[in-house]
Amino acid sequence: MRIDILTVVPELLDSPLNESILKRAQNKGLVEIVVHNIRDYTYDKHHQVDDYPFGGEAGMVMKPEPVFRCIEALRSQRDYDEIIYTSPDGIRYDQHEANRLSTLENIIILCGHYKGLDYRIREHLVTREISIGDYVLTGGELAAAIITDSVVRIIPGAIGDEASALTDCFQDNLLAPPVYTRPAVFNGWEVPEVLLSGHAANIRKWQDEQSLERTRRLRPDLLEK
Amino acid sequence: MRIDILTVVPELLDSPLNESILKRAQNKGLVEIVVHNIRDYTYDKHHQVDDYPFGGEAGMVMKPEPVFRCIEALRSQRDYDEIIYTSPDGIRYDQHEANRLSTLENIIILCGHYKGLDYRIREHLVTREISIGDYVLTGGELAAAIITDSVVRIIPGAIGDEASALTDCFQDNLLAPPVYTRPAVFNGWEVPEVLLSGHAANIRKWQDEQSLERTRRLRPDLLEK
Repeated sequence: MRIDILTVVPELLDSPLNESILKRAQNKGLVEIVVHNIRDYTYDKHHQVDDYPFGGEAGMVMKPEPVFRCIEALRSQRDYDEIIYTSPDGIRYDQHEANRLSTLENIIILCGHYKGLDYRIREHLVTREISIGDYVLTGGELAAAIITDSVVRIIPGAIGDEASALTDCFQDNLLAPPVYTRPAVFNGWEVPEVLLSGHAANIRKWQDEQSLERTRRLRPDLLEK
Repeated sequence: MRIDILTVVPELLDSPLNESILKRAQNKGLVEIVVHNIRDYTYDKHHQVDDYPFGGEAGMVMKPEPVFRCIEALRSQRDYDEIIYTSPDGIRYDQHEANRLSTLENIIILCGHYKGLDYRIREHLVTREISIGDYVLTGGELAAAIITDSVVRIIPGAIGDEASALTDCFQDNLLAPPVYTRPAVFNGWEVPEVLLSGHAANIRKWQDEQSLERTRRLRPDLLEK
């Protein structure tokens, strides 16, 4: 899989894309992640990527030309399955969308910054607008890091213990059960006895009950999906 | 405001917390962001922060002792308004919660990693569990960066043009209207005529209509809030 990320602040993405599981996945050749500075596709001497909005609203708007040029250059080299724009009014990102994206071959993630993109980019270039949640960020870079992280970690081979991803939250529309490790007693608080019993069937039953109880209590909406 | 972030992979947070608006807000003294390596609060020679789960599930679990020690050390220095754990089964993070957090004085954000935290930390230490969305990440670090970014940018003075934050998505439960910048014609696609008219009242009316139309079409749920 290849992920191209377009941004005006590439340095923001330095550490999130190059540590931990994302680093290992790239080293193993499971994914190629390439960050592009949109500013490299400006031809004026000030390398201007934004400009004042028509209509006099506050904030700056990202210009269409450099974004189109950058994406046209990428498209001349390979086909892309999706050109994603991270925006608070996109479709709500969830684990199902992460699973879907992880099966694609080449995707572009375009990060908005300032007040957003000139709308013509969204109308004529972007194929999918994704929101990671109902909150506003400085830019789309952290959203792009979130999408990349959640997609890459489920590519087979990316995390050491594959069984671990399968028991994650949401993979079966249930919240995960509580987990405990040593010591069995900490500050007087004991680990539930069943987990120390060594009785696999009882443990599994307890975990399933806890998952269901926690989902019913905290996120009943997941059970209706 | 002061934000303490506890993590086992502090290097992951290097660039997101030290660029763009977060960097400027710290330089201006509007916020102090301190990242703590939980590993510094281990006393064994291997600096072990995780251990196998009781019950034999896949994945590793973060041990209670180092987390309790780190938070007790912080609490001995000042009072904290919230101890937040970023978890997919927490309450859904949104702009209202970002607004609320931005009014607090001291908060701790605890990042889970591996299979999660020993549940006793969540029961006895954490005051608020927050989910940034229904997807699983490698760890809570990117979620902590998201919360920090969304909170800090609305602290008065953090972004240059304060009017810009007020016209963001969600601040009035409406999606933002489309924005455009120069050129007025690009690839044959024209900017809506009203935005070029210079007629402030008409522009405002068009923007309000677009906001409402986009919200009705894309996110009708926001109008019921």
